[in-house]
Amino acid sequence: MDLTPLIEVTRAARRFDPRHYLPFHVAARQVGWVAPRLAERLEPMAEVFLVGDFGVALHPDLVEPQARTEALDRAVETLAAEGWIVGVRHERYAIRERFDAAPLFAIERAAARPFGLTTFAAHVNGLTRRADGAVEMWIARRSPTKPIDPGMLDNLVGGGIAAGHTVTQTVVRECFEEAGILEPLARKAQPAGLVRLLREVPEGVQSEVIFVHDLWLPPDLSPRNTDGEVSEFHRVEFRSLPRRIVDGDPFTLDSALVILDCLIRHGVIGPDDQGYEALVAGLREAPR
Amino acid sequence: MDLTPLIEVTRAARRFDPRHYLPFHVAARQVGWVAPRLAERLEPMAEVFLVGDFGVALHPDLVEPQARTEALDRAVETLAAEGWIVGVRHERYAIRERFDAAPLFAIERAAARPFGLTTFAAHVNGLTRRADGAVEMWIARRSPTKPIDPGMLDNLVGGGIAAGHTVTQTVVRECFEEAGILEPLARKAQPAGLVRLLREVPEGVQSEVIFVHDLWLPPDLSPRNTDGEVSEFHRVEFRSLPRRIVDGDPFTLDSALVILDCLIRHGVIGPDDQGYEALVAGLREAPR
Repeated sequence: MDLTPLIEVTRAARRFDPRHYLPFHVAARQVGWVAPRLAERLEPMAEVFLVGDFGVALHPDLVEPQARTEALDRAVETLAAEGWIVGVRHERYAIRERFDAAPLFAIERAAARPFGLTTFAAHVNGLTRRADGAVEMWIARRSPTKPIDPGMLDNLVGGGIAAGHTVTQTVVRECFEEAGILEPLARKAQPAGLVRLLREVPEGVQSEVIFVHDLWLPPDLSPRNTDGEVSEFHRVEFRSLPRRIVDGDPFTLDSALVILDCLIRHGVIGPDDQGYEALVAGLREAPR
Repeated sequence: MDLTPLIEVTRAARRFDPRHYLPFHVAARQVGWVAPRLAERLEPMAEVFLVGDFGVALHPDLVEPQARTEALDRAVETLAAEGWIVGVRHERYAIRERFDAAPLFAIERAAARPFGLTTFAAHVNGLTRRADGAVEMWIARRSPTKPIDPGMLDNLVGGGIAAGHTVTQTVVRECFEEAGILEPLARKAQPAGLVRLLREVPEGVQSEVIFVHDLWLPPDLSPRNTDGEVSEFHRVEFRSLPRRIVDGDPFTLDSALVILDCLIRHGVIGPDDQGYEALVAGLREAPR
């Protein structure tokens, strides 16, 4: 198998030019990226942001996470009213250098991309073994009304990790909401590593860490969406996925990476395939 | 689980300072690293090597892989006689930029580290599921007479990929030689990605790509060494491995990385453990 078109998928997840953005600092740590146009708008909000040659910084007087969160809340409200931030959901992400570090602040999730903040998500590959031994993967089609990637193909389950939630809690909640999978089965979702994205998107920069999981479903179980975010599920042969990602109905970039990682871990794509090392490197190397 | 001591293991696999070495170029591509002392010895071998401010290069008149291989053979013979290269085995590695690129030349495997050349290996995690559902991993103890890492703990199977061999061929051959596993079962070893090392070693630089595999063995099968390279095999609980890698009998660094990758893929170590992101990054990021 020639893996070149799949390597191209991993490149799309790293399409980012730091020269297009200003670094965004909080407490002397770079936590994100801001487009120059937005930085200009932030400059007069001098009680919240410092804008200078160094980039954009949260005002150093905001030392406590709570104070930062409140100041950013007010700024986000203004920016949303002016159209700089769209799709406010009144759900917060905790922002931190690493997932296991203390949160620096929390922020409305719709603000993550405009500020290029790293967010964390949990995705689940739904796998089933057929009677003949072949493995199939459950694929979701996103609802045509979703604000991001409507109608595109997706993993069985995937969702952002809200402030104060663990990875496991997120998997359990999303398994129920998105696929009607109850907690005892959802807890069998096996963590299997992570994939990362850093890319320019219309709203700003998507910087994301996705904790990937595999969940083996009994052959007679069919996922059933409960929150209206998925329009249908279907099951496809594991071995058909490399071709489908390249030629079939479009997958979200996030789910394409999660599936590629799964295909590599399960040997559907292997070291005797042309481009294997480059594919693994493209999927796993640091985005920055 | 606090993953800090395991992160330290991944750091050991990246302990490399390019300032200690001169780059080694072949056909305008950097393929390795040479210690300054060895570069000095190469300088008078002017029909094979150019030594200058740029580092060390194979003589540009050597354009064909065959000519390069023959010239290096003669150089290696001289260097081995003088003690610059030890443990000559009369087996060759093909040297290439990526595993699937055309070989630039082949060279005696004992010369790989003195020239800091990237070599390729295939390792196999031997896994068994006990009657009670718990997973165990087969661990090999290297023969006390092996030139490298004698007596240390190792994967079920692991070996360098010789010139002209595929990954699958290497797995099949090594499964038989090292563990007495016959071809039909060995072919079930499932490729699951790769791990890389770039580190300073007494002989020079170890730059290695290890294609990792999982092989599920029937519970009643016990591996049996046939080539004298393994002194014993034993089976240990999957969940005990993080502690064993840190506190138990020493594992080779190669096998410790391969096992860590396996523990991450199978969720023995997960995203709710402290240090997970740093561990995965340490294991997977580009060594250079």
